[in-house]
Amino acid sequence: MEPLRKVSLAEKFALFDDAWNPRVVGAWDGQQVKLAKFRGEFIWHHHEHEDEVFFVVRGAVRMGLRDPEERDMLLQEGELLIVPRGVEHKPAAEGEEAWVMMLESAGTLNTGNVRGERTRDTLERI
Amino acid sequence: MEPLRKVSLAEKFALFDDAWNPRVVGAWDGQQVKLAKFRGEFIWHHHEHEDEVFFVVRGAVRMGLRDPEERDMLLQEGELLIVPRGVEHKPAAEGEEAWVMMLESAGTLNTGNVRGERTRDTLERI
Repeated sequence: MEPLRKVSLAEKFALFDDAWNPRVVGAWDGQQVKLAKFRGEFIWHHHEHEDEVFFVVRGAVRMGLRDPEERDMLLQEGELLIVPRGVEHKPAAEGEEAWVMMLESAGTLNTGNVRGERTRDTLERI
Repeated sequence: MEPLRKVSLAEKFALFDDAWNPRVVGAWDGQQVKLAKFRGEFIWHHHEHEDEVFFVVRGAVRMGLRDPEERDMLLQEGELLIVPRGVEHKPAAEGEEAWVMMLESAGTLNTGNVRGERTRDTLERI
């Protein structure tokens, strides 16, 4: 077993600058802890089989939700949202930049059902 | 499907005061987000089948680790540690109180392999 290492979110976020490119910082029980910087808007997508947890570490995130009953949701620092499988969503930074910790099954693709230029098939482990 | 609700960690931590009694604030893909206040020391235990993620929201946590090669680990605010299944550990607040977010499989028992007065078989959902 590899030695236990603690993970400082601030240290890890300092290691990269590009937006919408999640890094993996830890794994447990088939799940992964991913960190990403959000700038501007992402794309509409959903995940067929995976729920996703978004936790705002810095800044704020506007989660677009298509269902008119849900409306957009504004997430501030220290707030989290669980987006269940099948629910269309479009994350966006509210303001200049947001730092987000995501918790999800290891195989979850960042763009879900929508393959395109923003799809990241392999994620860097940092 | 129940409506999506965001979870403010600060609001949830304000709802309870007792230590070592985790509350469930969300669930995804067989996993749960649990919040707990730590005061003083917990007990030595391990989990046979589950890994555990500890993320320090406020204060600091000293994670006791029996393996002499691991030593104790001091976790500050904004730091996380994944304790793999089988690894004996003893969480403790460093200082007066720590607020901790735990991520783990829904069935994970707080005292792992050690049943006793600190075991919480059912957790409140808040």
